[in-house]
Amino acid sequence: MPSEFRTQRLVEWADTDKAGIVHFARFFVFMEQTEHEFWRTLGLSVHMKRDENIISWPRLTADCEYFRPVSFEDTLDIHLKIEKQSGKSLSYRFNFHHNGEAVAEGRLKVACCICNPGEKIRAIAIPDFISDQLTQQIAETTAT
Amino acid sequence: MPSEFRTQRLVEWADTDKAGIVHFARFFVFMEQTEHEFWRTLGLSVHMKRDENIISWPRLTADCEYFRPVSFEDTLDIHLKIEKQSGKSLSYRFNFHHNGEAVAEGRLKVACCICNPGEKIRAIAIPDFISDQLTQQIAETTAT
Amino acid sequence: MPSEFRTQRLVEWADTDKAGIVHFARFFVFMEQTEHEFWRTLGLSVHMKRDENIISWPRLTADCEYFRPVSFEDTLDIHLKIEKQSGKSLSYRFNFHHNGEAVAEGRLKVACCICNPGEKIRAIAIPDFISDQLTQQIAETTAT
Amino acid sequence: MPSEFRTQRLVEWADTDKAGIVHFARFFVFMEQTEHEFWRTLGLSVHMKRDENIISWPRLTADCEYFRPVSFEDTLDIHLKIEKQSGKSLSYRFNFHHNGEAVAEGRLKVACCICNPGEKIRAIAIPDFISDQLTQQIAETTAT
Repeated sequence: MPSEFRTQRLVEWADTDKAGIVHFARFFVFMEQTEHEFWRTLGLSVHMKRDENIISWPRLTADCEYFRPVSFEDTLDIHLKIEKQSGKSLSYRFNFHHNGEAVAEGRLKVACCICNPGEKIRAIAIPDFISDQLTQQIAETTAT
Repeated sequence: MPSEFRTQRLVEWADTDKAGIVHFARFFVFMEQTEHEFWRTLGLSVHMKRDENIISWPRLTADCEYFRPVSFEDTLDIHLKIEKQSGKSLSYRFNFHHNGEAVAEGRLKVACCICNPGEKIRAIAIPDFISDQLTQQIAETTAT
Repeated sequence: MPSEFRTQRLVEWADTDKAGIVHFARFFVFMEQTEHEFWRTLGLSVHMKRDENIISWPRLTADCEYFRPVSFEDTLDIHLKIEKQSGKSLSYRFNFHHNGEAVAEGRLKVACCICNPGEKIRAIAIPDFISDQLTQQIAETTAT
Repeated sequence: MPSEFRTQRLVEWADTDKAGIVHFARFFVFMEQTEHEFWRTLGLSVHMKRDENIISWPRLTADCEYFRPVSFEDTLDIHLKIEKQSGKSLSYRFNFHHNGEAVAEGRLKVACCICNPGEKIRAIAIPDFISDQLTQQIAETTAT
């Protein structure tokens, strides 16, 4: 039973900058790609239509700490953990490793919102059909 | 009377890659930024609401030829010219110079479309209020 | 015997723009990612050290034609073919499909260069250890 | 006497995503662009050669809090403040406003490093010719 969601990502050329290493802002894109892949494993999408509403997850906060530079064609091992689930928001933690060494650690706090085109974005309580899936994922995490 | 629209752009760090120069795909973003700035000088937006429809300009083709590498903090002089205006499409040409030397030349062909959320994108004849502005710009170009 | 190199790519959130579809410039990044993945299958890297020189492949030209919009979480089937190999350059063609429908077709022409830090970039004849691998790949292509 | 460095940035199309607003990771690129523009006003570059060494500023931490969504062609007012200067590092704070309303606030902590090609990156004490310029900027800040 996995205690966290795990995936990998190869560093692409377009992730690098003139310093020859991955540009720091790309780690936020890596976090998001991992989050979305995690949602797909739950059979959900991070941006989905439900009862005529589009449910999506705008970001409240994002942060990252960088330990080591990462290079073109390095493979990143990425671990996602849900650190906290409140009524309307989720907090993820992401750990990045390369060859067994920690290279970065980040966090995203996201809000469950209705994001219909042409309407003002508004936060809602996380719907049960999502919450149930996440609770189960957290339960599996705690159990291990 | 200007024969073409002219602007400048400073090369940012995030435009560069591991080779230490501007990543080739960034030139397409530079072209688009120039196109949009040009539209603003006409008092228009490239993505605007008109009579309950959203008019936007999906790309049909894009190409670029690269002559010289460009580096961080270089200033690019960018010239936009409308090469062709047909019923439903426009063809732009972009010339990029740095310190008087040609560094790249690109083209975008774009289609005038109604892009309402939830509807299929469909091409339309370029509306008069846009066409008139562009014709005037081309006339000015031809006159010089 | 495969007549071309084939791979897939899932459309990520950060590939999309306000029109709700993949931003046109991202296709050039997809082409490059495919090119690099192809090189790895040859046991090579697109940016490698050999006899104290860094051999890399600056772009001479890039183009793309767009047939249909592509959306978040769509899977792209990407086929790469070497259209031409001359003494110092290569021309790739890329075909993009989604659910069996052609969505885009692009081309990159790249030059074999020595790109040592601090030196001027200079084109060279494609070295034999690369050329041999490519010739074999083209032979396989032609044979099918 | 300005208490902080101030600049503006127009939101470009390529900054937006399918939600129709600026992608959260782009704010980190906006911070970096502001940082680099600030350095240029000091007569310096964030990546410069000095006595045969390349001095650059890898990121230690980055964070951002998001208050309101920002749209295509919105103008961002960006304020940079140096919150802390220690021996080898700097902490910047960035405030983003649109039409007088706070839309985001971020921070970057960066390390002064020698980043020569082919060598391991190593942190150094901030050299005097840089430190003097920054101290003066902070003094001006404190005085207001």
